[in-house]
Amino acid sequence: MPGRNHLFVPGPTNIPERIRRAMDVPLEDHRAGDFPDFAKPLFEDIKKIFQTSAGQVFIFNSSGTGGWEAAITNTLSPGDGVLQSRFGQFSHLWAELCRKHAMEVTLVEAPWGEAVPYERYAEILKADTAHKIKAVLVTHNETATGVTSDIPRVRKILDDLKHPALLMIDGVSAIGCIDFRMDEWGVDIAVSGSQKGLMLPTGLGLVGVSQKALEWRKTAKCHRAYFDFDDQLRMNADGWFPYTPAMTLIRGLRESINMLLEEGLPNVYARHARYAEAVRKGVAAWGLELCARDPASYSNTVSAIVVPMNKNANDVVKNAYARYNLSLGGGLGDVAGKVFRIGHMGDLNEIMVLSALAGTEMALRDSGIDVAPGSGVGAASEYLRTTLKPA
Amino acid sequence: MPGRNHLFVPGPTNIPERIRRAMDVPLEDHRAGDFPDFAKPLFEDIKKIFQTSAGQVFIFNSSGTGGWEAAITNTLSPGDGVLQSRFGQFSHLWAELCRKHAMEVTLVEAPWGEAVPYERYAEILKADTAHKIKAVLVTHNETATGVTSDIPRVRKILDDLKHPALLMIDGVSAIGCIDFRMDEWGVDIAVSGSQKGLMLPTGLGLVGVSQKALEWRKTAKCHRAYFDFDDQLRMNADGWFPYTPAMTLIRGLRESINMLLEEGLPNVYARHARYAEAVRKGVAAWGLELCARDPASYSNTVSAIVVPMNKNANDVVKNAYARYNLSLGGGLGDVAGKVFRIGHMGDLNEIMVLSALAGTEMALRDSGIDVAPGSGVGAASEYLRTTLKPA
Amino acid sequence: MPGRNHLFVPGPTNIPERIRRAMDVPLEDHRAGDFPDFAKPLFEDIKKIFQTSAGQVFIFNSSGTGGWEAAITNTLSPGDGVLQSRFGQFSHLWAELCRKHAMEVTLVEAPWGEAVPYERYAEILKADTAHKIKAVLVTHNETATGVTSDIPRVRKILDDLKHPALLMIDGVSAIGCIDFRMDEWGVDIAVSGSQKGLMLPTGLGLVGVSQKALEWRKTAKCHRAYFDFDDQLRMNADGWFPYTPAMTLIRGLRESINMLLEEGLPNVYARHARYAEAVRKGVAAWGLELCARDPASYSNTVSAIVVPMNKNANDVVKNAYARYNLSLGGGLGDVAGKVFRIGHMGDLNEIMVLSALAGTEMALRDSGIDVAPGSGVGAASEYLRTTLKPA
Amino acid sequence: MPGRNHLFVPGPTNIPERIRRAMDVPLEDHRAGDFPDFAKPLFEDIKKIFQTSAGQVFIFNSSGTGGWEAAITNTLSPGDGVLQSRFGQFSHLWAELCRKHAMEVTLVEAPWGEAVPYERYAEILKADTAHKIKAVLVTHNETATGVTSDIPRVRKILDDLKHPALLMIDGVSAIGCIDFRMDEWGVDIAVSGSQKGLMLPTGLGLVGVSQKALEWRKTAKCHRAYFDFDDQLRMNADGWFPYTPAMTLIRGLRESINMLLEEGLPNVYARHARYAEAVRKGVAAWGLELCARDPASYSNTVSAIVVPMNKNANDVVKNAYARYNLSLGGGLGDVAGKVFRIGHMGDLNEIMVLSALAGTEMALRDSGIDVAPGSGVGAASEYLRTTLKPA
Repeated sequence: MPGRNHLFVPGPTNIPERIRRAMDVPLEDHRAGDFPDFAKPLFEDIKKIFQTSAGQVFIFNSSGTGGWEAAITNTLSPGDGVLQSRFGQFSHLWAELCRKHAMEVTLVEAPWGEAVPYERYAEILKADTAHKIKAVLVTHNETATGVTSDIPRVRKILDDLKHPALLMIDGVSAIGCIDFRMDEWGVDIAVSGSQKGLMLPTGLGLVGVSQKALEWRKTAKCHRAYFDFDDQLRMNADGWFPYTPAMTLIRGLRESINMLLEEGLPNVYARHARYAEAVRKGVAAWGLELCARDPASYSNTVSAIVVPMNKNANDVVKNAYARYNLSLGGGLGDVAGKVFRIGHMGDLNEIMVLSALAGTEMALRDSGIDVAPGSGVGAASEYLRTTLKPA
Repeated sequence: MPGRNHLFVPGPTNIPERIRRAMDVPLEDHRAGDFPDFAKPLFEDIKKIFQTSAGQVFIFNSSGTGGWEAAITNTLSPGDGVLQSRFGQFSHLWAELCRKHAMEVTLVEAPWGEAVPYERYAEILKADTAHKIKAVLVTHNETATGVTSDIPRVRKILDDLKHPALLMIDGVSAIGCIDFRMDEWGVDIAVSGSQKGLMLPTGLGLVGVSQKALEWRKTAKCHRAYFDFDDQLRMNADGWFPYTPAMTLIRGLRESINMLLEEGLPNVYARHARYAEAVRKGVAAWGLELCARDPASYSNTVSAIVVPMNKNANDVVKNAYARYNLSLGGGLGDVAGKVFRIGHMGDLNEIMVLSALAGTEMALRDSGIDVAPGSGVGAASEYLRTTLKPA
Repeated sequence: MPGRNHLFVPGPTNIPERIRRAMDVPLEDHRAGDFPDFAKPLFEDIKKIFQTSAGQVFIFNSSGTGGWEAAITNTLSPGDGVLQSRFGQFSHLWAELCRKHAMEVTLVEAPWGEAVPYERYAEILKADTAHKIKAVLVTHNETATGVTSDIPRVRKILDDLKHPALLMIDGVSAIGCIDFRMDEWGVDIAVSGSQKGLMLPTGLGLVGVSQKALEWRKTAKCHRAYFDFDDQLRMNADGWFPYTPAMTLIRGLRESINMLLEEGLPNVYARHARYAEAVRKGVAAWGLELCARDPASYSNTVSAIVVPMNKNANDVVKNAYARYNLSLGGGLGDVAGKVFRIGHMGDLNEIMVLSALAGTEMALRDSGIDVAPGSGVGAASEYLRTTLKPA
Repeated sequence: MPGRNHLFVPGPTNIPERIRRAMDVPLEDHRAGDFPDFAKPLFEDIKKIFQTSAGQVFIFNSSGTGGWEAAITNTLSPGDGVLQSRFGQFSHLWAELCRKHAMEVTLVEAPWGEAVPYERYAEILKADTAHKIKAVLVTHNETATGVTSDIPRVRKILDDLKHPALLMIDGVSAIGCIDFRMDEWGVDIAVSGSQKGLMLPTGLGLVGVSQKALEWRKTAKCHRAYFDFDDQLRMNADGWFPYTPAMTLIRGLRESINMLLEEGLPNVYARHARYAEAVRKGVAAWGLELCARDPASYSNTVSAIVVPMNKNANDVVKNAYARYNLSLGGGLGDVAGKVFRIGHMGDLNEIMVLSALAGTEMALRDSGIDVAPGSGVGAASEYLRTTLKPA
């Protein structure tokens, strides 16, 4: 099949050439005497991406799912209360994982397409005068629905109630794309993975941990070993990893951090916002709607697009892939068949965004959804063109 | 600058991943005992791309310009007559090269945008009863104007007149993209380079040579050494090169040939024709015109697009590159500032073609050329969508 | 620093060019419709490397340490008895991990340099008439000391006693290098990692599981989620992974399996044996001794070499790295400073083995250990030369 | 075949990882507006490698053979006298090339293994009072025999005689490895290729040209086009190439220059000298002799080693390659079968040098040449170890 694949799933994202080359290296001795010269600055700089200076960021050989497990098992004990809202596949899965680790999960169902139900969170936490809830979970950016929740607002609920629960954030499809301020927002644990905003292959789970959360590990009774913060803390301090690190990915992570800091995080966030808005202009021009209901919670990294009632969103995904080598995200869980998703995060530029829309337009028409050819691209391109700032 | 460069100059073209990996190899001993096991099939298979079985194809470490020189110096003598038509920058340059090698060039000026002036060629050759013209040159696909000439028609002129001149073709931006039949069309020398239809980096000059042309080397008095056919003939026969070959490119060439033969040359040509037509649909939707005047000679590898009289085509190219990381071709020589060019050859698929149009649309509007946003993409995408054959 | 690093730590090992290229790919959609066409044969073929047809092999984004955790948590319950012998750093660490998961570990201390204490295992298991010991752990190849234990012999102990405990093997530095027959030897769980015999970067934990062990997961009460066999079983059946797989490594794994099967596992094992013997010839020529005491348990993947009493093995490692860019393994745990290690596993040939010895000779002399220059290389090379079979 | 190839032919040489990655790039538009920002510093910095500030260095898509042709055709006219000495295959070939371009070659035969016959050069030039000899050619480092000639001594001959002939140097296997001072030594033309000291794949011919030689182009009557200095001069001045440059190689060249300048040319030369001496220590320990007769002319980039009278050097090369994947150079031309060659130039370190010797020792013994196992490696390693300077 000639030409390249057009990768617009909401992760993994496109690897920039610089990172690709940084990973194309022979293997190395991770116990070499000069290894800490490499690792120590890395441990410092990854913290900048999480916008934390008070906390730590641990790097695991795992996916983001492993990060979820690390968050829970290092700070909580079996039977502890966990508050989570289920409004998409990934908030659903984190709650499931908590249950597997014997947490008492208070699961608040919310419509898929909405953000965290702040009011319900507030009510539940207010009612929890015994502080049985030890952790409040928020999926910052629900990848299944393209909805971003307001972390400071959740923080404020906890603060107002003086509730001591840890605030744990799934930042997998947000960190490195959407503004995320671990320290300023009072986040206790933030989980991410390598294959989204960090523009790397899958294989690293990154977990930002506040000092408060680190303290909790001392009383947490969940069994843990592979994901134990203790081993990381002890070894990282001297520039080592507790077991063999996934060095090709970690060499890529070094370059990823370099790129993000060179561009500047505010610029990175603004770029994602602008591209997301362009995609939304395109969707509007097609006459279609987003799964996300409230513009305030539109995601800047993924748009889940609802197909007309009598159509199957999976057809769009299939046609895009089979006919045009365009990889879109399908609907997951409760919205399977109802939405398809365009990932617009990571290493993108204007024309790449337009290429996703151009391919999607064709796939929509192939699937019997009558959008005007060129309409989405035209709306998006005019927005992009007129909002471009000179370099 | 985030995201990838969008390369739509008319060469170099995009390297497919398979070829990129094939070239990412350690260096090797080109005198190793098993080297001929690799080289001999290569020498055979490259002939298939030229559609010759009677001739030879020589592989030089050079650009296509070197191939031009090889063609002339191996078959002609100083003072020999050469017939060439000047209707673009590359036909111009080949004629210049002939002059540097002391050929007597009969240069037929033709409007840039037209094909070889067949009638004038016929007249001149008819008048050349003394057969002072030893070589008839045709730039098969003039990259500067997006015009493809009719090689069999030139052959017929020679045949009808029983004129013995060698028929020499510049196939640099044609071979591997546009149907080219060296044996069937009676071509004596065909020159190509690695960075166009072969989807490789620049660095290889490929020269197809008929038995008749090979015979002529015995009387040709031009001095030659680096490009001497003799050395190639003698060494290639046993699977060697006369001097150190550019092995990374040659490993890539092996993969390139594999890919072209796997897809099948007729499919490759049809794909190029279809993408070219899509681009032309886009240009028409913009209300712009091609530099090429006669639809019969529209190039399937490059479209030179004329901007309105009061506009500067260089602005389009500059804006495309500076604002969107889109590389278009500028106007060269006589059409500088008047046309810009979209290369659509090599490793492309539908969405890549549309991405070129999407970026060009923005650059046109940035340059004050009022095309409707999405119009070109829409026209092209609908054409591509409805002409796509199931895999 | 000019020239390449010479990587002879006992993992990670050298990546072959074929694998390196196989991993140098753009990212891809792991939910694409044709993904199972890739994944299903992979799930089958990795079983061949473990020599199992009755069992399953699960592929985790983790290191081998994660594989240890998967083995324990999927089959056992807190408080279960585990029998392990501590005779090196890695057998030590697996026991520690079991303790973290609340197992009752019966830890048999054995001298570092010896294999599993078979007699003690037999006695303990015989005494365990209540079958409180649920798992018998064996570190097949103790990477810290260069000692290989006899797995069939441990199996026989269990069989003779009709003891139902699961037999769990750490095969991290053995599988793909040293003969390992999961089915034939009655192994219930075998753990490996990507960065040793599989010649890949670190980042994949591979766990072979017998049907018996799979059955045990139904009653195992350890909490588990990331490493849950259930999710893998269910998803793998249809050619999927339960969460985003580390695709660059997995594309490499495909190529690694191809290479091992092309060479043939018996040939791979024989090659490792021959290179290991060459290293031992070299060590003998130096007048030094191995940490491994019994020739029957000499490891074919790593040799731990004892330095004279008044010398520091760390000096050898430091000099090798700082002066010659040669990466050797240092002594770990109880043998720190007393031994250094040469890894000789994975993608090696004769001259690579000799290069390790040549560099070590210099580093030994630099560290005040008076070996005769060229002695180790000479002894090894003559052995290699005279035992080479024609290709 | 497991493990890597050991490349010790006298070019191509090993590509350093940094250069390999620098070349693993997508193609680019060599007419992009910002291209001169890249090219202009490159044109300046390559001059540093030739140690010229007064001259120019032109970069051709060719091999070094093309550089020979460029040197001759841009400065001379058919019938011009050229003085060359034939003392190896490459001095032989350059003379042949001159003849093909109709030069009157005065060819001084010298024994293969000796340097330029300075006295004969002096006599001939003295006798040439009519200054019919327009160019004096010197193969600085004869790759076939491992002999380095004394360029300043030849310069002095010309100066003493006030002979105006151009001094042309083949520096292919010398520049970037052995001290070469174009300006200081009064060299008029220096030819090199990419695949030796520059550590790149074959494909670039580099030609350093003095102002005097540039001046001569105005009267030189040789026909030339592809290798015309004029086009390069005119285009390079503004940061362009006259035709499509081999960009992947040129991106590699940029990195190569960076590496050489970072290490420092004096350090590069000293490293080559030290490794060459180590090889010679090894050869002496084997009881074998070099083809080069005078220690003053021993090459620091390649050693040609004479096998005993009744043995065939080709057997050594064949055994090395077939049995150990070691690529050595065979004997060429007059010394075919009598010598084999070890290339020791480019990106090497101590252990790489020793690995060549270790493999050669085995191949010698396989070929019935009775060297003591380990003797060459031991002698070389002890020399390397004791002469290593702290980093």
